[in-house]
Amino acid sequence: MIAVDRKGPKTLYRQIYDAYRTGIVDGSLRAGQRIPSTRVLASELGVSRFPVLNAYAQLLAEGYFESRIGAGTVVSNSLPDNLAPSVQTRKRVATIGPRPMARTASVLPISGRPPWLRGRGAFGVGQVDFDQFPLRIWSSLVARHCRKMDAESLQYGGPMGSKALRETIRNYLRTARSLHCEAEQLMIVSGSQQALDISVRVLLEPGDAVWVEEPGYHLAKDVFSMMGCELVPIPVDGEGLNVAFGIERCRKARAALVTPSHQFPLGVTMSASRRFQLLEWAQDTGSWIIEDDYDSEYRYTTSPIASLQGLDGNDRVIYIGTFSKVLFPSLRLGYVVIPPDLIDRFLAGRRTMDLGPPRFFQDVLADFIDEGHFARHIRRMRVLYGGRQAALVNSISQELGPRVEVLGAQAGMHLTVTLPKGTRDKEIAERAAAMNFWLWPLSPLYMSARSRPGFILGFGSTAARHIPRAVRKFRSLLDAR
Amino acid sequence: MIAVDRKGPKTLYRQIYDAYRTGIVDGSLRAGQRIPSTRVLASELGVSRFPVLNAYAQLLAEGYFESRIGAGTVVSNSLPDNLAPSVQTRKRVATIGPRPMARTASVLPISGRPPWLRGRGAFGVGQVDFDQFPLRIWSSLVARHCRKMDAESLQYGGPMGSKALRETIRNYLRTARSLHCEAEQLMIVSGSQQALDISVRVLLEPGDAVWVEEPGYHLAKDVFSMMGCELVPIPVDGEGLNVAFGIERCRKARAALVTPSHQFPLGVTMSASRRFQLLEWAQDTGSWIIEDDYDSEYRYTTSPIASLQGLDGNDRVIYIGTFSKVLFPSLRLGYVVIPPDLIDRFLAGRRTMDLGPPRFFQDVLADFIDEGHFARHIRRMRVLYGGRQAALVNSISQELGPRVEVLGAQAGMHLTVTLPKGTRDKEIAERAAAMNFWLWPLSPLYMSARSRPGFILGFGSTAARHIPRAVRKFRSLLDAR
Repeated sequence: MIAVDRKGPKTLYRQIYDAYRTGIVDGSLRAGQRIPSTRVLASELGVSRFPVLNAYAQLLAEGYFESRIGAGTVVSNSLPDNLAPSVQTRKRVATIGPRPMARTASVLPISGRPPWLRGRGAFGVGQVDFDQFPLRIWSSLVARHCRKMDAESLQYGGPMGSKALRETIRNYLRTARSLHCEAEQLMIVSGSQQALDISVRVLLEPGDAVWVEEPGYHLAKDVFSMMGCELVPIPVDGEGLNVAFGIERCRKARAALVTPSHQFPLGVTMSASRRFQLLEWAQDTGSWIIEDDYDSEYRYTTSPIASLQGLDGNDRVIYIGTFSKVLFPSLRLGYVVIPPDLIDRFLAGRRTMDLGPPRFFQDVLADFIDEGHFARHIRRMRVLYGGRQAALVNSISQELGPRVEVLGAQAGMHLTVTLPKGTRDKEIAERAAAMNFWLWPLSPLYMSARSRPGFILGFGSTAARHIPRAVRKFRSLLDAR
Repeated sequence: MIAVDRKGPKTLYRQIYDAYRTGIVDGSLRAGQRIPSTRVLASELGVSRFPVLNAYAQLLAEGYFESRIGAGTVVSNSLPDNLAPSVQTRKRVATIGPRPMARTASVLPISGRPPWLRGRGAFGVGQVDFDQFPLRIWSSLVARHCRKMDAESLQYGGPMGSKALRETIRNYLRTARSLHCEAEQLMIVSGSQQALDISVRVLLEPGDAVWVEEPGYHLAKDVFSMMGCELVPIPVDGEGLNVAFGIERCRKARAALVTPSHQFPLGVTMSASRRFQLLEWAQDTGSWIIEDDYDSEYRYTTSPIASLQGLDGNDRVIYIGTFSKVLFPSLRLGYVVIPPDLIDRFLAGRRTMDLGPPRFFQDVLADFIDEGHFARHIRRMRVLYGGRQAALVNSISQELGPRVEVLGAQAGMHLTVTLPKGTRDKEIAERAAAMNFWLWPLSPLYMSARSRPGFILGFGSTAARHIPRAVRKFRSLLDAR
């Protein structure tokens, strides 16, 4: 009934186990059928009794066999008669029967990255100059923490993150970003995206209306879509989000997502009067403001702009920061500053989402900041990026002159150029991508049809001396249309 | 109008900036009011012109000042008349106005850890023996990867995780867990909790009914609650989840969460017939099965139980695994095996949730597995934990004899003892916690009132020689009631 191959790649145990299991599943052995004793089978097969005993034990443990006093071992009586439909040959096309999914998840774009985000090079957005990162210092801190690893450091940490890192970031935010906060309000997250996700999950419900900047960051909008919120695009003008327009259009929105220090993608700084209007609206309507402060450390003409959170007397602002731009993205560390009365809720949500952040690099980062490497790195990079920004603005003015308008160049690692109405920025970007030249078009970042054509040009990863050539390439693409 | 203190701790720039900003915010400077020129102010204050220029530039950038040709610099005309309500003195009690939150998030327990989960020691559940972890090997791999770090490794990785680690885990799962899967189906996550969270967000909607094991893991249930799903508790008996009961009670449930290899907390292995019933129900009703395989690597009497996923011919099973138990929890690495037709959806969901996992330790872990350290570690720990399990079972039988029933001791790092009806396990656990003795009571893991009293006793972190004393302490607590 069962045959084994002593020279086959499978162990005898596995062959016996598989033979019985297959026989049961394909129906050649029926429920209740008697199985020879291990002694008998071993002697019939001419093998030692050990593999037979082990295979029987496994089949008993998994419920394929049952053993009754006086009746020996039988095929389990409780198995369904016909197992074929669920197990037989595996169907690789899994389209049988309904495959229901969440509606909210199914509205997310699945197409993968658009062509212009597939490569890295001149004008890549959100790319830091990796060669400038003080890898040697970082590595020595990593090595130091590796030596210090002990039983305690292998344990679960808390959902909020390490106390040392939170204290360190609190001190940094108070002085560098004019934030009002205590370390208890800080939660360490894996970056802006998770910070936004947890804020949305704690604060919003399906159907809630939310103000988003028009144009604005596409991945941020996806977070609201995944919650089933209604996106209300509010135009951004020279002073930032047009609050009066928002109040007119949808006063009852439950939250607003803003990038007041350096609007993405237009680069505008939200004016003081708009900030006060926004805070007043939030307080009047009981709404929340989510302040995404993704790259405010790099500002070239003035000091970094004071945060919106620091102006808020009513704890209506959830403040989000990240180390992806000032250190490096694969670190996956950021933070969210939570109004005091919401801390418990964020904590419960975070525990439910992923228990909390990994510990090791939190400790490394805390030392990196405390020992002054972080401040030094920012100072160095501000000078470096400032030079690249100036080179890019210069080149654009020389090569393209009045054909384009340059926006938002005073901060961050990108600027935006807008082009005359009717310019097909998306087509140009697709053509550029086919040449391994990465231009992020502006118009897809608008939700409404009233979009402006243009491009978001990153300058973080391109040396100043290479910028003029990249701008000429850009011009030739514009000319070719 | 403005005074500066040359010996104060604040820079002159900061003093000037703060003085104007405060004056504007508290209303002592009004919209449109003229500001002295930088030259005049500098000479009045008797300071250099640089800090004055910088402060003015900042106030202009932030929109507190505006400057008009011919009219000099004035306080911005667009500021609201009365800024006081939003900014003035900061109210630390943030209870003014409505503070709406998501209903689903507000049902999560915020109380923090119950007393019995606050400390570590004998009987701690989910605790590995950290002293046995091959820290030296791990550290040398960390050091090696630190040396190899380059620009590419600092970049964003993909939402699914590193290709190398996914290939490695696929090979492991095929041989060790009888899984059918390709590397493309594997997503690296931060642990079981995130794996469950993404599965729920992609597959389920508010209001969907879900089968959960009764008793079952509390943090898993929270994930469904946060989505607004209806929890349907299905009793676990000696063969695992009672599928017939589930079909009778709520056939139309959209998903079932099960721990078939080693049910948490009762330790039962789901029988073959129940597995086939469950797969059949899922296929008949178009439902999903989430298989949480949290600790199946450690099994003492037989080989690890074959996964439910490997039996499923219809791609209805989402399989979840974690390295928290076989390596260490603070690593925060786990994985989810996704049916092929859902990969795109999980990917889009993951990108929206947190962009993807951090890269560094994925690379370290891939090497740790590929170089055989992982298999060696599991083999060593299986022997070690097996000894502890035997010591615990022995001690219980000696000290408590027929007073308790021992369940689920054949696998994992915990077993469960049940106690006579009416035993107040929660009270005993609270008394124990007050003595820094951590006993996890069984009854709170039931949703219905028909709970069994008992305790979940972890043996992962306690040396065999310390177990008898801990059991005597446990007995004295039971006696004292």
